[in-house]
Amino acid sequence: MAELLKGKPVADRLANACAVRISALLDKGVQPRLAIVRIGDNPGDEWYANAATKELAAAGVDSFVIELEGRTPQDIVVHTLKNLSADDAVAGILLMRPLPAHFNKEKVENAIAPEKDVDGMCDVSLAKVFRGDSKASLPCTVKAVLHLLDFYHVELEGARVVVVGRSLTIGKPLVQALISRDATVTLAHSKTLNLSQLTREADIVVSCMGRAHALTGEFFSEKTVVIDVGTNEDKDGKMVGDVDFGAVEPLVQAITPVPGGVGAVTTASLLEAVVSAAEYLTIENS
Amino acid sequence: MAELLKGKPVADRLANACAVRISALLDKGVQPRLAIVRIGDNPGDEWYANAATKELAAAGVDSFVIELEGRTPQDIVVHTLKNLSADDAVAGILLMRPLPAHFNKEKVENAIAPEKDVDGMCDVSLAKVFRGDSKASLPCTVKAVLHLLDFYHVELEGARVVVVGRSLTIGKPLVQALISRDATVTLAHSKTLNLSQLTREADIVVSCMGRAHALTGEFFSEKTVVIDVGTNEDKDGKMVGDVDFGAVEPLVQAITPVPGGVGAVTTASLLEAVVSAAEYLTIENS
Repeated sequence: MAELLKGKPVADRLANACAVRISALLDKGVQPRLAIVRIGDNPGDEWYANAATKELAAAGVDSFVIELEGRTPQDIVVHTLKNLSADDAVAGILLMRPLPAHFNKEKVENAIAPEKDVDGMCDVSLAKVFRGDSKASLPCTVKAVLHLLDFYHVELEGARVVVVGRSLTIGKPLVQALISRDATVTLAHSKTLNLSQLTREADIVVSCMGRAHALTGEFFSEKTVVIDVGTNEDKDGKMVGDVDFGAVEPLVQAITPVPGGVGAVTTASLLEAVVSAAEYLTIENS
Repeated sequence: MAELLKGKPVADRLANACAVRISALLDKGVQPRLAIVRIGDNPGDEWYANAATKELAAAGVDSFVIELEGRTPQDIVVHTLKNLSADDAVAGILLMRPLPAHFNKEKVENAIAPEKDVDGMCDVSLAKVFRGDSKASLPCTVKAVLHLLDFYHVELEGARVVVVGRSLTIGKPLVQALISRDATVTLAHSKTLNLSQLTREADIVVSCMGRAHALTGEFFSEKTVVIDVGTNEDKDGKMVGDVDFGAVEPLVQAITPVPGGVGAVTTASLLEAVVSAAEYLTIENS
């Protein structure tokens, strides 16, 4: 029986730590506020935006959603993000991804002011992550993984970690963050040969490949800590991870459930990022 | 007996490819030119600047060195780099690193205009590398490693590569470049446990740790391709790599000599970067 690495206690601790900081901001007359920009009608985006809005509101943080049609021209999106960047009433900006395929991602993502970039997507944020800057704005999912590992005292220094999935939103920045924490990290992906051999030898496996139940029992050993970032729909429309939980859970040392694992910490990590951005804005404007 | 991966034929091929492009620029009345900025009197910097100047001149590319004292204030360095960035007669800027320890690296490196950043150090360059942009300006040593692997037909797709050393000038950007080429990459460093086990299992080992003869025979297998980026001085003042060449060469599949390996390709990679920058500048100004 594996240790179950549930997200809720991690999220609760994060929210508690934020509560003190939010009070201090409100006492100064500062209302922390997040703008969420959604393009097109991806149901997953809507679900996440609603969940985030609700959790932020419960913590005393405002948020509002700007919904743009999928056919909105890129210039309008850039203009919207620049306006939000210039608006003192907005502390943080979250642009939902993936963007429409015909957009120039780099151009759109760089319309977000670095100090409001709560999901770490503009060039300045990416460069800070790459430089190993401890103040870098990491994507919220990456922060969630780190918070989870820290909460459950999973040792990173010297640990052998395999990250499966090389996206710019999770895999790549996670590798940088883990390297800064002195882990020895392997980035694996769809072209990796003998993946199961690689993951079996790892102390920690983080999967962010986005393929339902792709990782079965043979991928792990009894010492593996399994962090499942995947949120996929199975054939019955149920949300499942990249890891076949039922088969893997009895075999490994520890594992995150899906749902209730990393995802449960992601919105709390977003809350934390908005609070940090609001604090920064307050100092800048004082 | 290992195959010897010499740098000279790689550099020669690169220089030949550049010659055609340089002729085309000169025909248009454009003189490609590199500004090299050195701070303090690191003898290694002087050696590299001289070697680069000579090789560039032989290819028809101008260069000049701006030498600043080690105690030069950061603002003066930033000012110098901004002036060079604005100067239409300068196509590329190479700032020698490491910078004095008290400098704000990020601030200084960002004073270089991205389109003139031939050694890939400003935020825009770093972000492009991180994004996996095929037009990203990689550090010249990283390009040299890739050119060398390509020249000798070392297959990267699906290959297991261990990079030893996590610097922002070599290890980290090299990992990104190799990931974009579909290799499965592990980044190892001073805190890595059981390094020799890790490297023995790799198809390709790239060492950029900067420790003379740190990697001995036990780190490799008969199938390993060894790329030695290290340029260290041994106790007799002789330039040696990170790999104990004498002990390792008889055991592995292929290996780069030091000197005469990666280093020999680095200045040719710099030449290529200056030519590309000059071509870009020509298009921008037309």
